[in-house]
Amino acid sequence: MVDPVRLALVGCGRIAQVAHLPAVEKAEGVELVAVSDPSGAVARSVARRRGVAAYTDQGSVWADALVEAVIVAAPDRFHHRLATEALAAGRHVLVEKPLASTVAQAEDLVGLVDRTGLTLQVGAMKRHDQGVRYAGRFIAERLGQVRSFNAWYRIGDLRPGIEAALFPPVVAEPDVRRREAAAKADRRRYLLATHGAHVFDTVRFLLGEVASLVARHRGHDRDHVWQLLVTTAAGAVGTVTIAADVPGLPAEGIEVFGVTGAVRVDLHFPFYRRAATVHAYTDGAVVVPTLTDGDAYQRQVEAFARTVRAGGRPVPDVRDGLAAVRLIEATATAVDTGAEVAP
Amino acid sequence: MVDPVRLALVGCGRIAQVAHLPAVEKAEGVELVAVSDPSGAVARSVARRRGVAAYTDQGSVWADALVEAVIVAAPDRFHHRLATEALAAGRHVLVEKPLASTVAQAEDLVGLVDRTGLTLQVGAMKRHDQGVRYAGRFIAERLGQVRSFNAWYRIGDLRPGIEAALFPPVVAEPDVRRREAAAKADRRRYLLATHGAHVFDTVRFLLGEVASLVARHRGHDRDHVWQLLVTTAAGAVGTVTIAADVPGLPAEGIEVFGVTGAVRVDLHFPFYRRAATVHAYTDGAVVVPTLTDGDAYQRQVEAFARTVRAGGRPVPDVRDGLAAVRLIEATATAVDTGAEVAP
Amino acid sequence: MVDPVRLALVGCGRIAQVAHLPAVEKAEGVELVAVSDPSGAVARSVARRRGVAAYTDQGSVWADALVEAVIVAAPDRFHHRLATEALAAGRHVLVEKPLASTVAQAEDLVGLVDRTGLTLQVGAMKRHDQGVRYAGRFIAERLGQVRSFNAWYRIGDLRPGIEAALFPPVVAEPDVRRREAAAKADRRRYLLATHGAHVFDTVRFLLGEVASLVARHRGHDRDHVWQLLVTTAAGAVGTVTIAADVPGLPAEGIEVFGVTGAVRVDLHFPFYRRAATVHAYTDGAVVVPTLTDGDAYQRQVEAFARTVRAGGRPVPDVRDGLAAVRLIEATATAVDTGAEVAP
Amino acid sequence: MVDPVRLALVGCGRIAQVAHLPAVEKAEGVELVAVSDPSGAVARSVARRRGVAAYTDQGSVWADALVEAVIVAAPDRFHHRLATEALAAGRHVLVEKPLASTVAQAEDLVGLVDRTGLTLQVGAMKRHDQGVRYAGRFIAERLGQVRSFNAWYRIGDLRPGIEAALFPPVVAEPDVRRREAAAKADRRRYLLATHGAHVFDTVRFLLGEVASLVARHRGHDRDHVWQLLVTTAAGAVGTVTIAADVPGLPAEGIEVFGVTGAVRVDLHFPFYRRAATVHAYTDGAVVVPTLTDGDAYQRQVEAFARTVRAGGRPVPDVRDGLAAVRLIEATATAVDTGAEVAP
Repeated sequence: MVDPVRLALVGCGRIAQVAHLPAVEKAEGVELVAVSDPSGAVARSVARRRGVAAYTDQGSVWADALVEAVIVAAPDRFHHRLATEALAAGRHVLVEKPLASTVAQAEDLVGLVDRTGLTLQVGAMKRHDQGVRYAGRFIAERLGQVRSFNAWYRIGDLRPGIEAALFPPVVAEPDVRRREAAAKADRRRYLLATHGAHVFDTVRFLLGEVASLVARHRGHDRDHVWQLLVTTAAGAVGTVTIAADVPGLPAEGIEVFGVTGAVRVDLHFPFYRRAATVHAYTDGAVVVPTLTDGDAYQRQVEAFARTVRAGGRPVPDVRDGLAAVRLIEATATAVDTGAEVAP
Repeated sequence: MVDPVRLALVGCGRIAQVAHLPAVEKAEGVELVAVSDPSGAVARSVARRRGVAAYTDQGSVWADALVEAVIVAAPDRFHHRLATEALAAGRHVLVEKPLASTVAQAEDLVGLVDRTGLTLQVGAMKRHDQGVRYAGRFIAERLGQVRSFNAWYRIGDLRPGIEAALFPPVVAEPDVRRREAAAKADRRRYLLATHGAHVFDTVRFLLGEVASLVARHRGHDRDHVWQLLVTTAAGAVGTVTIAADVPGLPAEGIEVFGVTGAVRVDLHFPFYRRAATVHAYTDGAVVVPTLTDGDAYQRQVEAFARTVRAGGRPVPDVRDGLAAVRLIEATATAVDTGAEVAP
Repeated sequence: MVDPVRLALVGCGRIAQVAHLPAVEKAEGVELVAVSDPSGAVARSVARRRGVAAYTDQGSVWADALVEAVIVAAPDRFHHRLATEALAAGRHVLVEKPLASTVAQAEDLVGLVDRTGLTLQVGAMKRHDQGVRYAGRFIAERLGQVRSFNAWYRIGDLRPGIEAALFPPVVAEPDVRRREAAAKADRRRYLLATHGAHVFDTVRFLLGEVASLVARHRGHDRDHVWQLLVTTAAGAVGTVTIAADVPGLPAEGIEVFGVTGAVRVDLHFPFYRRAATVHAYTDGAVVVPTLTDGDAYQRQVEAFARTVRAGGRPVPDVRDGLAAVRLIEATATAVDTGAEVAP
Repeated sequence: MVDPVRLALVGCGRIAQVAHLPAVEKAEGVELVAVSDPSGAVARSVARRRGVAAYTDQGSVWADALVEAVIVAAPDRFHHRLATEALAAGRHVLVEKPLASTVAQAEDLVGLVDRTGLTLQVGAMKRHDQGVRYAGRFIAERLGQVRSFNAWYRIGDLRPGIEAALFPPVVAEPDVRRREAAAKADRRRYLLATHGAHVFDTVRFLLGEVASLVARHRGHDRDHVWQLLVTTAAGAVGTVTIAADVPGLPAEGIEVFGVTGAVRVDLHFPFYRRAATVHAYTDGAVVVPTLTDGDAYQRQVEAFARTVRAGGRPVPDVRDGLAAVRLIEATATAVDTGAEVAP
């Protein structure tokens, strides 16, 4: 029996409360020992319920000898600084995606991870979706050379209602909420980064590196859509759609066509805790696996704990996180220039 | 602004922890003030987390003047006794289904509710599923006279894996677990009552009273299946399937065919917190509503609170609970005798 | 290379023109040499187009030495007489379902087939649906002992529009059409026989003999519905729905649940020429075969030709046809008496 | 009652036999009076069956005073010449898509149609698919401004098996088949033209003119895939996939996202004679119309006949045909240059 990894949660906002805390409570191999949040009220409320220490500055976390590793769930613009401090303080890090706000920041973290030898895992938890992993194995083993693909990530305007049904009550301070809303004021940039981090990580996981992309964007008030034409290093051609606030239900997925097979992956809104639905075709039949282990956040933190204890490369690792940031920036550049861009 | 109904939870076992407590935490119009469980460890663990009083006998609940209403979530065989005590103590009751273990017990509760004038709502929460309600309105307004129907309730052997992904960690005492497993030793009777209570309530909600039924049963080790031929008071003929431990995913639903329309309702495992998927056909098109308010347990307790405050008939009420118990017994009798039975 | 079986078509009405003639034109192993129909105009029109002989009485068919085998596609009430005459005249017979109008007639044909040693195949062509056959193999090899099932056969009121899109132009005499409509005046009996012949043959093919059934019927003007509770000789319990003129699209299918697997078969309206869609679950995955050979009428006549040439038992044979007629009669008796009936 | 339009069929190859002849036989408002094909055997076989005149050169068609209009179903490379001759001879023309092999040829036909005032309709029959038309109305009336879309047209390697099941027997001369196969030897060009003609016509019908496109192509032996990034004149951004010989079943469709609604159209292989399946979302519900009139080829020729008799613009007309050819050429140019191209 391995000792559980003693975790602190840095940042107790919405994603922390609805995703990471329930996952950590259920996960094997981890034990929550502290939380921190700039809002004392939030930190104390969250901590009291779990019987752990509450801090209002991350320095106290680094100073807490009990803490072996941290989950960084603070807003995107703090990922780089908090991950840097945690590594510098000798802690393993599971940092929410995107890894950083710029390629330069992400590269900086690659260097730091290499120097410290610590585990840094990026919170692109869809890699741990049982269905996405099934598709990954199917592509590697049965689909043959990949020729083409189409990926889509659409945030429908019914999502808030779904969140209201799925989310536990969230403790928040109105002031903090307002400040965060302001920080997301460059909504176009925010949406591309937050959604692109997922879709690009999934594309890379299933199809390998992206060689180049062409991108078009349209903005309409608060709504934004990006359409991309993508060529992979292995020679496949595909499309990627990122749309925020289309009417209706959210939808996320990818279809991949190879020489001997094809696979379609429909990812579910993660808080349904359902593994992606996979339709894998080869040899005259579609196979639809019935995958029941659907909590990707729990699977993610359990994978993190195993890597901390056993060593090896975390999934996704700091270089995967860097690659996603490169693709986010490449998309923005491709939109601005109209040209084909290599990330 | 109405004062929230001050609730106690009587029975803190699995269904209480995975369904009622999360619902109460989110619901509008209720406030949890106490919990009770025969296991002191369980009661204290649950209570500490919510900052409420912990009792180990229900008498203390009845004695707690703060408590206005209770949710009875103890094992089935205690429903009648605990509901009776709660009503006698002047408390409104939301009692898990089935209302009671026998028709006589259920009739007893009807009398008590009538005498006390208190609210007793039965925990057949599927009535509060947004999709089931949509179907109810569609049947009443668009489908025309009902001619035939087919209902099914199948517990697939993949359900434990799904529960493991969806459920929060459950606090339990091994001794209590063993005792409850023993109490469910008459598994055939237990399965018919626990699943039948749902399917019969849904059938009655959508189609009105059942006039008669014929039933066949097959048991195979731990697995059981019932097939029913049902005639409604309004003259429709239908079938009902209740199957426990068929291979694969769980499935629950009903198809109803009328003169001018037809509707199919696919209910989801409740802990996905998804409203039933409805396909409603009439006039040359199928309509599939996109219903986002999917937490039937939360909707149930909010409806209970509104009825406690505003009066009126709870849904489902004690007579609905009695009718479900009658249908459970009628099914058992029909299997034993081979004959057509009026409930 | 085997000589094609020289076929005559006896009865050139609608089913002959839309199903059998296109099938015979495409099928391997058969050659149409003559057609007969009481309407000379219809017989000549059909024959001219195919360059074959046209007769107006079946006696001329029996007298035509070129004819080796016949397809009997006349109205149901003539099946017995025409099949009897054909066998007596030494011809192999593919007779449309139902085999005969009564059990006595069907038994009579069993005796005649046994005495003559000729091939008589019943036109329950769904046995030759690639999807139904896939399901048959899956049940035999993977599903384990069958425990329960649900079958349905619903003729939706949108079927005429679908037929108008799918059917080729049909040559008919108005007088004959009126006479046939009058012969179907006992619409309740007609519907049970014509649809029951399909569903009972499929149930027996997949699940073996039926031991007993209970049935309820409701009629509403021209519309009729039957609900059955069925026990198989092997001990499975199931339901069968036969509904004529429910609103919406037609639907036909069966779900079968066994110890180690489950299968759902959705049969398509045959003139789509699509094999049934099959979902076969076992061992953690649903398999959906992509079956492209979807013309059951063509497959049926090719199977008939192979049996005529190579010998062996046709599928379905005269005893299968008798069993279907027994189940049709048993259903009518069960409705009339309210009792459980063994076919 | 309007006199039927007296039609000749010019070119009796596969598409003529499997699509146009069955459609003409059923369609209202047309009467087949002659056929022509370079192969006398094919022309006579087809003509004999329908009791019409058989010609082996199109000059005889132009000389036949009975002929009012022609369907040009010859190979693509003859479309321009035959349509030109037919118009010059004063005949209305329904010409298979693509209208012509080059933009110059197509422009030439635009001029000729304008000068003669005759009806020229292009055989992009998907415009007459009941589902595509439903989607067109939905987009115009309910979806709001179009923001983004994704279209796909994939020919799966299971298509030959499906064709074998759906197609009637085809009369052909081996020599002609070989010659045609050779003419399609530039398979890449052939595939883009034959499939692109459909998908571009559907895109324009639903979304209006295309302003520009970027395209990437990959070829693998006989297989080819094109991925396009498309901007419409109205400002929407979208993707178009054209893939030939991916594994599995064929798939064709388009999803369109607007301000107030979204629609998905799944077109079926046309020989199923099923209207496209449409999912139209707006105002909290998906509507799926049950469309039964599924023979697009029949609907196309009936529309042609109505236009010939009543005048007005045929759908699609010669300018639609020209636009599709422009888009096919623009795609080829975009692939060759890597640049964004305006058609």
